[in-house]
Amino acid sequence: MTKPVFDRVALIGLGLIASSMFWAIKRGGLAGEVTGYARSQATRDTARDIGLCDRVCDTVADAVEGADLVVLCVPVGAMGSVAAEMAASLKSGAIISDVGSVKRAVIDAVQPHLPEDVHFVPAHPLAGTEHSGPESGFAELYDNRWCIIVPADKDTSPEAVAKLRALWEGMGANVDQMDADHHDLVLAVTSHAPHLIAYTMVGVADDLRRVTDSEVIKYSAAGFRDFTRIAASDPTMWRDVFLNNKDATLEILGRFTEELFALQRAIRTGDGDHLFDYFTHTRAIRRGIIEAGQDTEAPDFGRGAPKS
Amino acid sequence: MTKPVFDRVALIGLGLIASSMFWAIKRGGLAGEVTGYARSQATRDTARDIGLCDRVCDTVADAVEGADLVVLCVPVGAMGSVAAEMAASLKSGAIISDVGSVKRAVIDAVQPHLPEDVHFVPAHPLAGTEHSGPESGFAELYDNRWCIIVPADKDTSPEAVAKLRALWEGMGANVDQMDADHHDLVLAVTSHAPHLIAYTMVGVADDLRRVTDSEVIKYSAAGFRDFTRIAASDPTMWRDVFLNNKDATLEILGRFTEELFALQRAIRTGDGDHLFDYFTHTRAIRRGIIEAGQDTEAPDFGRGAPKS
Repeated sequence: MTKPVFDRVALIGLGLIASSMFWAIKRGGLAGEVTGYARSQATRDTARDIGLCDRVCDTVADAVEGADLVVLCVPVGAMGSVAAEMAASLKSGAIISDVGSVKRAVIDAVQPHLPEDVHFVPAHPLAGTEHSGPESGFAELYDNRWCIIVPADKDTSPEAVAKLRALWEGMGANVDQMDADHHDLVLAVTSHAPHLIAYTMVGVADDLRRVTDSEVIKYSAAGFRDFTRIAASDPTMWRDVFLNNKDATLEILGRFTEELFALQRAIRTGDGDHLFDYFTHTRAIRRGIIEAGQDTEAPDFGRGAPKS
Repeated sequence: MTKPVFDRVALIGLGLIASSMFWAIKRGGLAGEVTGYARSQATRDTARDIGLCDRVCDTVADAVEGADLVVLCVPVGAMGSVAAEMAASLKSGAIISDVGSVKRAVIDAVQPHLPEDVHFVPAHPLAGTEHSGPESGFAELYDNRWCIIVPADKDTSPEAVAKLRALWEGMGANVDQMDADHHDLVLAVTSHAPHLIAYTMVGVADDLRRVTDSEVIKYSAAGFRDFTRIAASDPTMWRDVFLNNKDATLEILGRFTEELFALQRAIRTGDGDHLFDYFTHTRAIRRGIIEAGQDTEAPDFGRGAPKS
């Protein structure tokens, strides 16, 4: 057993990300005690039932009291109000972090509420599944995934960054560091735009009059079903992501529609060479992702044929 | 061992679909002999090396001679010329089928070349992976997947349809029947539009100046990587699909961009309720797909964390 990175960690919000953090922290022996808080009584009850957190608290103040690290794991739109609620109870010298998918808006919402004697070190683990809630977490979620640390400003204590990095590495993640605006643009490409596009495609399929939902479902293995996984992600979380990363998401969607129109024109005019070249080109990125250990090379994501 | 459905089956074109058919036919004892033909010498050599087909022929005429069933497994754009090439060698009374992802254009391209004394019964198995070529096939590809039979006209012999159905059911598939235009619209929704959208998103990510390919690859687990699987599909096949299902694909893409613009406007104007409602709505289709046995319910397609 290695020495814990923190004596006491408080997880605020107990969904997929926080519950996976808890199990990964336990697996690695990374904290002396982990407290947890969730706004809903039902979530707190579930957490107590399944042993999620060493101690589940009924108020955010109780959860953060004495904690060396507090991690906000609530939807991006709720970060500011939770920060205000807990501010007076924070221990002097504590590190405050979060796991939000957007960083500029979270920094702007949280920082004004924090006392001067704590260290604010935002972060974003790039991991998740389409499932949500306290029961969806598992210790392996962060293994070989990336966590991006986004120091709130130039004065952020290097020691605080190093401790947070050690925690994420202990949970299995690789750690990178970048500034908030670049983070928000990179994530608009690798996450936010793809999610909106997937939601849109699934919405269109559901809404067509000439093709029934039952046909869409039966014949989904021809490609469509791949879109439905990320379009099943948590609606509150994703509403907040789009509202809080407007500019970068709209910029990428603008580039996407421009490109889509060019391909539609190639289809309409019968420009097969353009289509063929485009489709050849896009294979290389998947090879890169597989070589980087970020996806399986097994055909069809290794799903195999479900048994009837 | 059940009685074979056909004495001799000829597979023309030896990629993922044909090679999976061969292994599924062998598994089920569904044919006395399976011959194969591929235009490229390299593909024929590979097929002989791996035991793909009971007999690999150097001409399409040799492959189809005496066959009770001939299945065209070439890209949609090559169907017409292959049909012309083999027409004179077909056995009287033979059933001719195909596996093309588009049906109206294939019927129009193939039917004029066929002699009057054969039965043309087009079909489309809704199964595949992102891999291609003779070595990518496996016997289980069609298990619990759907195959849509699209009789070329009202006079199609019911006996010929029944035999083709028995073959596909023997290979593990469920069989449906519909007309060519409806097939092409349904597939535009469940397959063709999703593929074009995935190709576009991957192309945009690859082409951005402000985000590097290495960043896209490292941070792909946040959603983007799901798009790269279908954007790694065979470029020739997909070029032909789009060129041969223009109208339905463009119709669905038109609906898609309309819907995408509405969601972009909701982001721009901060209409969180619209976004939340939309994202809630799309979860139901995924539940339907899982209940229908067309996808796994394991989080993240069950990929788990790749080991570094």
